[in-house]
Amino acid sequence: MNELQRRIRDEGRVLPGNIIKVDGFLNHRVDMKLMRGLAKEFGRLFDLTGLTAVLTVEASGIALAAVCAEEFGVPMIFAKKAKSDNIEGGLYHSDIYSYTYKKKVTLIMSRQWLGASDRVLIVDDFLANGEALRGLVDIIEQAGAQLIGIGVAVEKGFQPGGARLRENGVNLKSLAIIERADENGIALREEE
Amino acid sequence: MNELQRRIRDEGRVLPGNIIKVDGFLNHRVDMKLMRGLAKEFGRLFDLTGLTAVLTVEASGIALAAVCAEEFGVPMIFAKKAKSDNIEGGLYHSDIYSYTYKKKVTLIMSRQWLGASDRVLIVDDFLANGEALRGLVDIIEQAGAQLIGIGVAVEKGFQPGGARLRENGVNLKSLAIIERADENGIALREEE
Repeated sequence: MNELQRRIRDEGRVLPGNIIKVDGFLNHRVDMKLMRGLAKEFGRLFDLTGLTAVLTVEASGIALAAVCAEEFGVPMIFAKKAKSDNIEGGLYHSDIYSYTYKKKVTLIMSRQWLGASDRVLIVDDFLANGEALRGLVDIIEQAGAQLIGIGVAVEKGFQPGGARLRENGVNLKSLAIIERADENGIALREEE
Repeated sequence: MNELQRRIRDEGRVLPGNIIKVDGFLNHRVDMKLMRGLAKEFGRLFDLTGLTAVLTVEASGIALAAVCAEEFGVPMIFAKKAKSDNIEGGLYHSDIYSYTYKKKVTLIMSRQWLGASDRVLIVDDFLANGEALRGLVDIIEQAGAQLIGIGVAVEKGFQPGGARLRENGVNLKSLAIIERADENGIALREEE
């Protein structure tokens, strides 16, 4: 059992609707020492030879992705959701469905920051339905860049995102996989 | 001239409407080594005795705030914009006007993560009209927490946010202040 799994077991809570709350250390009030440990763990799990960027999507993945990027000595790039006025033309974009906001969202990223010579690790804090990660993989394909893999902190193993990405041949590593979250608490997948 | 000021001078661009683009190193594709340098500079500029948290607002301030929080050994907390389904009741909230999105936005943050015993440094990447920072200061006041100061990477000195915050007695430090941005380029305020 790693540090993240211990924190989920000890501090995670389940709200009605099977919403898992780990926001006291992962995605609202963020424990940076824990993030650094997760970054080092991704460094052990992936072959990062030739890595040129860590990619994530706003907002809650940014803290973890930032620490990973610093750890691996590359820039951190993040895709934005929907269009704002201060991104000029020349965008990659990919439509996804946001279960959090219950509507279609477009991920956008400037073409300036990703091209065919890039080797990218995607990092995110959470994986459930995998829509955001699917959009990021799509953007990497549009750029002709190479995807080294996807590092996720917490995967909801009972939702379909992880299985779908693995079926598509993505090298996905999740540091904690939640098998069940209900009124009895949170059950984590045992290490293989 | 510090490293950030050099990067703005060498890599910053001005788009029509006086929009300043520094997204190649500050707020879209983020240079983490630069962020670490900015965090160390804030460490020199502020008396961080008793600091308990670094606070920012999603999304582009998170990378810098995360590195600052790690540098100072405290958690990084970020306020979210508008209401999503996975934040339960018990929220601080503050209404601001977003010039980026041209509409009212509500900053929200769980009351769990900030209280009267906290001593907080606010960190953000950009300061223009100062609406987001005004909202964060409002949330700190609601919490009864103590504001040590606000550390900003880039301040647009020709917009009113910085002057307003300083008039209200906030200990605001900006690592680069842009005096003018137009078709002739970007002019930085000289060090005093």
